[in-house]
Amino acid sequence: MISLTNKQIANLITVEECVPVIEELFKNIENTQMPPKVYMNIPNGDFRSMPAVVGNTAGIKWCGLNIREEGKIHIFAKILINDTISGDLLAIMDGELITAIRTAAVTGVATKYMAPEGSRVAAFVGCGVQTPNQIKAVCAVRDVERVNVFDLDRERMLGICRDMQDYKVEIHPCLDLEDCVGNADIVTTLTPARGDGYLEHCMLKDTCHVNAVGADAKGKREVRQSVLEGVDLIVYDEWEQCSHSGEIQYGSNTTMVPLATVVAGNGEHEGRQTLFDATGLAIEDVATARYIYDKIRNNIMCG
Amino acid sequence: MISLTNKQIANLITVEECVPVIEELFKNIENTQMPPKVYMNIPNGDFRSMPAVVGNTAGIKWCGLNIREEGKIHIFAKILINDTISGDLLAIMDGELITAIRTAAVTGVATKYMAPEGSRVAAFVGCGVQTPNQIKAVCAVRDVERVNVFDLDRERMLGICRDMQDYKVEIHPCLDLEDCVGNADIVTTLTPARGDGYLEHCMLKDTCHVNAVGADAKGKREVRQSVLEGVDLIVYDEWEQCSHSGEIQYGSNTTMVPLATVVAGNGEHEGRQTLFDATGLAIEDVATARYIYDKIRNNIMCG
Repeated sequence: MISLTNKQIANLITVEECVPVIEELFKNIENTQMPPKVYMNIPNGDFRSMPAVVGNTAGIKWCGLNIREEGKIHIFAKILINDTISGDLLAIMDGELITAIRTAAVTGVATKYMAPEGSRVAAFVGCGVQTPNQIKAVCAVRDVERVNVFDLDRERMLGICRDMQDYKVEIHPCLDLEDCVGNADIVTTLTPARGDGYLEHCMLKDTCHVNAVGADAKGKREVRQSVLEGVDLIVYDEWEQCSHSGEIQYGSNTTMVPLATVVAGNGEHEGRQTLFDATGLAIEDVATARYIYDKIRNNIMCG
Repeated sequence: MISLTNKQIANLITVEECVPVIEELFKNIENTQMPPKVYMNIPNGDFRSMPAVVGNTAGIKWCGLNIREEGKIHIFAKILINDTISGDLLAIMDGELITAIRTAAVTGVATKYMAPEGSRVAAFVGCGVQTPNQIKAVCAVRDVERVNVFDLDRERMLGICRDMQDYKVEIHPCLDLEDCVGNADIVTTLTPARGDGYLEHCMLKDTCHVNAVGADAKGKREVRQSVLEGVDLIVYDEWEQCSHSGEIQYGSNTTMVPLATVVAGNGEHEGRQTLFDATGLAIEDVATARYIYDKIRNNIMCG
């Protein structure tokens, strides 16, 4: 049995490396099982259990979210994976970094299959801990020449630009939301916004792709109804989760298809304006953990 | 964070010690949360995720059952517990021994509140790995003078008698089922029987208590309909699980109440003939794991 910390995992997998892992997962979606996430509410947050089977790997992510003093959010996650043939536990891994990496990798896969081929400008709204990984995922699948970022918290926005100053693409802080997304071919929203959302359809280019990553719970919302109705195609990661917790919980008359269908169709679903609604899936955690496990085992066996 | 193996846990908790832990749990059932177990089937078995909150502990048991070559059953289980206030992971423990101990402890609690006061003879049907713990649990709550055991596998039956030859109560192997249960005040069934079950009402004493422990899945059954209809009271550990996976999945017109009600009522539910239907609960795993964790922490802090 292998036990891995976030720090060790950081040296074992990159976002760019995880994109094809997640692509492969969605190509083989028929070899997966994923019962609904189970939530247990506690006074200052919740705990979630996310079991899944991917091929011959059964696994679970056990994670919690606590609001501590001064409103600080504390995230906890562990991932356990077992071999389904032997039943043996293969690994216990810290789940926080895997979650961030696989979430970005899914954005990469959706962008690869849905964003305009010639995309050059990518906008990222919200400059939290996930944003650098999301930038890397998008830039892994398109020849992005300019990255715009925006956050209401100016310090946080400038922090991202500073942290990524050596990155292959220049990161531009923006004055406001319109400035950030207005000329973007790819827009990725990464905020914990609630209420009516903030992204309007009139802000978007005529041809573009939106990754709506932030909304993953009832009441969360980043894109306004004008976007949900205005785009030509909505792709969701998983119907049950998205219709309960994603952007599409608010309903839309736009055509909706699962990401697995888009990935199987090799891009035939590319539209004029597309939106990907991501809530985060247990199968993504299990597939990524298994990839890391196999990488270590192969290294050990070859080394 | 504390990490414990089965071997370490064996030195940290006894069945007798776990009985009051489980009793306390059922006395405070209003401070618990337990969503339904989630099953994922695999070709040769299944994996289960069992999350629960007990007081300020959130936890999960992740477990699997695999039928290996030659029909050998392989059981795997890990239990993770977190503090709900901080969100921090407190412990990762092997779950196999905790499962066996808490299952026996629940039998002890049910027997304490339901079995005739003057019970002297206890019968155990099925001599698997759980049976020694179950014997200890029953003998912890009643002054048992004679223990009868029976198993269709004679070697296994004699093995239990040999293994427990130094136990405070003598263990008698029996010739057949009737011989085992016929004069018993307490009957505990511990087999993986399916189909129609095997325990008939006419085999039981006029005053007795039955712990039906084996049935914990659809299709499993140890007691026949004559028992379900013939006893005066049926107590279940949890309604959803028992009505789907326990003995009462087959229905009965007998009065049914939850164990928590019986424990709260201080024995008022003691009947002429009673049956306890146990399926095993995630709250029992979490409560037992937290007890072990607290014991270590207190020792460390005192020592």
